[in-house]
This record gives sequence, C-alpha cells and structure tokens, in this order.
Amino acid sequence: MNRLGHFITFEGPDGSGKTTVSQAVCKRLQENGINAVYTREPGGIDIAEQIRRVILDPNNTAMDERTEALLYAASRRQHLVQKVLPALEAGKVVICDRFVDSSLAYQGFGRHLGMEAILMINQFAIEDVMPEKTIYLDLSAEEGLRRIAGREFRDRLDQESLQFHYDVTEGYRQIVERFKDRMVMIDASKAVEDVIEAAYQQVVSILNEG
Amino acid sequence: MNRLGHFITFEGPDGSGKTTVSQAVCKRLQENGINAVYTREPGGIDIAEQIRRVILDPNNTAMDERTEALLYAASRRQHLVQKVLPALEAGKVVICDRFVDSSLAYQGFGRHLGMEAILMINQFAIEDVMPEKTIYLDLSAEEGLRRIAGREFRDRLDQESLQFHYDVTEGYRQIVERFKDRMVMIDASKAVEDVIEAAYQQVVSILNEG
Repeated sequence: MNRLGHFITFEGPDGSGKTTVSQAVCKRLQENGINAVYTREPGGIDIAEQIRRVILDPNNTAMDERTEALLYAASRRQHLVQKVLPALEAGKVVICDRFVDSSLAYQGFGRHLGMEAILMINQFAIEDVMPEKTIYLDLSAEEGLRRIAGREFRDRLDQESLQFHYDVTEGYRQIVERFKDRMVMIDASKAVEDVIEAAYQQVVSILNEG
Repeated sequence: MNRLGHFITFEGPDGSGKTTVSQAVCKRLQENGINAVYTREPGGIDIAEQIRRVILDPNNTAMDERTEALLYAASRRQHLVQKVLPALEAGKVVICDRFVDSSLAYQGFGRHLGMEAILMINQFAIEDVMPEKTIYLDLSAEEGLRRIAGREFRDRLDQESLQFHYDVTEGYRQIVERFKDRMVMIDASKAVEDVIEAAYQQVVSILNEG
C-alpha cells in the first residue's frame, strides 16, 4: 500500500479531553486548507459498529477480558481497512481518536492481560499500519475521574473501578516510555484552549516534517 | 485450572460428516454411562452467538479476512470459558465439533493468512487449553463439495469458491502432519456407520489411556 497521507492518533485516559481536542485540531487544519479527516473506531463502519455493540452492551456482563480484547482488535481492523487506509491513500491527514495504544492501556494494563500479548493481536489486526505520531494527553487518574463523574451517559466501561483507571493511566505512561519516538506528550490538566493550541502546533510541526 | 475431564475435538472439511459423527459418538458414550457432552461454537453462549451473527451475516460482504479471524477467536474464547472449561472442571468428557484447527485450516490456509499468525491469535484466545486428542475426518475436497451440494441452507462460507475448499483440505493435511501427536486421522469416505464406529473406538481408547 502506498501511504500518501499522514496518520496521527490521539490518546489519553477518560476525561483527558481527547475527543474535544482532536476534533478541534482537525477543524482548525481544515480551516487552514489542509485535507484532514477526523475519525474514531468504529467510525460509522457497519461491521465495526456491529462489533462495538457486542462489546458495549451492558447486558454482556459475562464477557471474558480476552474476548473483549479480540473484539476491539477486530473492530479496529475493519475501521482501518474501510476508513483509515482509503483516506491515507487519497492523501488525507487522518486524525484518529484512539487506536492501538488504547488497547495496550485498557486491556494490557487495565485488564492486566499484558502489553506484549495485546500488542501481538493488534499487530495481526493492523499489520504494519502504525500512526506516524501519537499525541498523548496526559492527566492523572484522579483528575480524569473527577471530570467524567459529571457525564450523564455511563456505559459498561465507565462503571469500572477506581483501580482500573489508575492502572490505565499508569499503563499509558509506560507506553509513552516504550514508544517515545512516536509519542508526543501534552499536559491535559491545563485549560482546554491551551491543550488544543499545543496539540495543533504539534500536528503542524509533524506535517511540516513529513 | 484443574482439568479433571477429557477434551476431544472433531475436525474435517465441509461434508466430512463431523457433526453427525461427533454427535453419534457422544450419544454412544452417554449410553455406555460416560458423562459426555457434545458442543460446538458458539454453543448457545449468548455473547459467542452475537459474535457469530456478525461473522455469518450474508450482508457483511465487506468483512476483511483478518476481522473474520479475530471474531472467530473471540467467539472461541467465550465458548471455551463459559461452556468447555466448566464441563472439564466438572469431570466431563467434552466432545467439541471444531476448534482451533478449523481456524488454522479455514483462515490460515483457505484465506491464506498463514498458519503461524492464526495459531498466535488463537493461543491468545485459548491460553493453554488445547484438546487432548483431535479426531480428523479426512475427505477429498471433491467428495466434500459433492456432499454439501445437496444441502439447502447456504451461508456466506458455503458460497466460497472451489479453490477455497481445496486449500482448506490441503491445509488440514498439513495441520495433521504438524500436530501428529494430537491428531487421529479417520477415512471419512466410508459409510457413515463405519466412520462412527472407527471414531468411537478411537475415543474409547483415548479415555482408557487417560
């Protein structure tokens, strides 16, 4: 495959503002004439949506953690093939809200399945298509939980324990250390406008390098 | 986990009579006072059934082959955890119609994803729970296709090409060679009563060894 575009992912624990920030960055790129597209799994891809419904159904309390990890990898594969790759091949800048690192943090560390095992099944899913750069919005578990406490909708994942959120946050920090060439860390405890500005500047510098 | 029971799987290409033979063997074990249970994925396990519906939906023509392989592994995991392991822990003889070898043959060889890659994601799914023995019903691709041509219901997999069925059959023969300590090959071109008798005798000898 010939990758003409740029593939940039946003990561961070719940409450870090990933979605708000990545959407704002994408919008600003578009306003500046850059052919950018925002997406997140399952991204309107029918098969990936079907898989996500199985994962997130609050009735599926019997779901094993390895089943969940395999389903996330399956959903990721389908979204990648049907949405991310065609956009990259068309020369677009793809801003993707969560990707492999989310599985490493949530399943690898949060569920204690181990980073290597989760990396392995995700490599099967994505083959060699890793993001060029990943913007990591760093936030403490306490602050992340404080922020999400006010949200109305709670799915199965939001009901997880405090310890889970601590493990995910600690996991992200180990992932940043392991993949330091790919990761750009931004302090997400600041005002959201400042986080957006910092993230936007990082993305612009990535595009200028490419 | 303490495995008190016996885990025996049946494998073979479409039309080899796996389901008929494995059910008949299980019934005969039960008639002889052995605490045996027949199962096949998804096996009435709600989450595994939901995953299977996504795989087999004839509308999902856009499904990528790696997505499919990950979904089979996810369904397998859930069936294993919710049905096979509890039966083994209760000391039962579990007769399972298809297991990991089916993914090796269909996804690894039929879809050309490679045996090693499919083995890897399935090892994540099953951890160390491999069958004690696998009864392989050997049949040529031509004869298997001739037999299934008469069936009324056709799902997405049944619509695959002749070449796919050849590749699956050839794959099974390589799998038998690779895992020869675990595999017992039976000629499935014979009359079904003879195949059942041969398979039953094999299972009895496995149980006597254990």
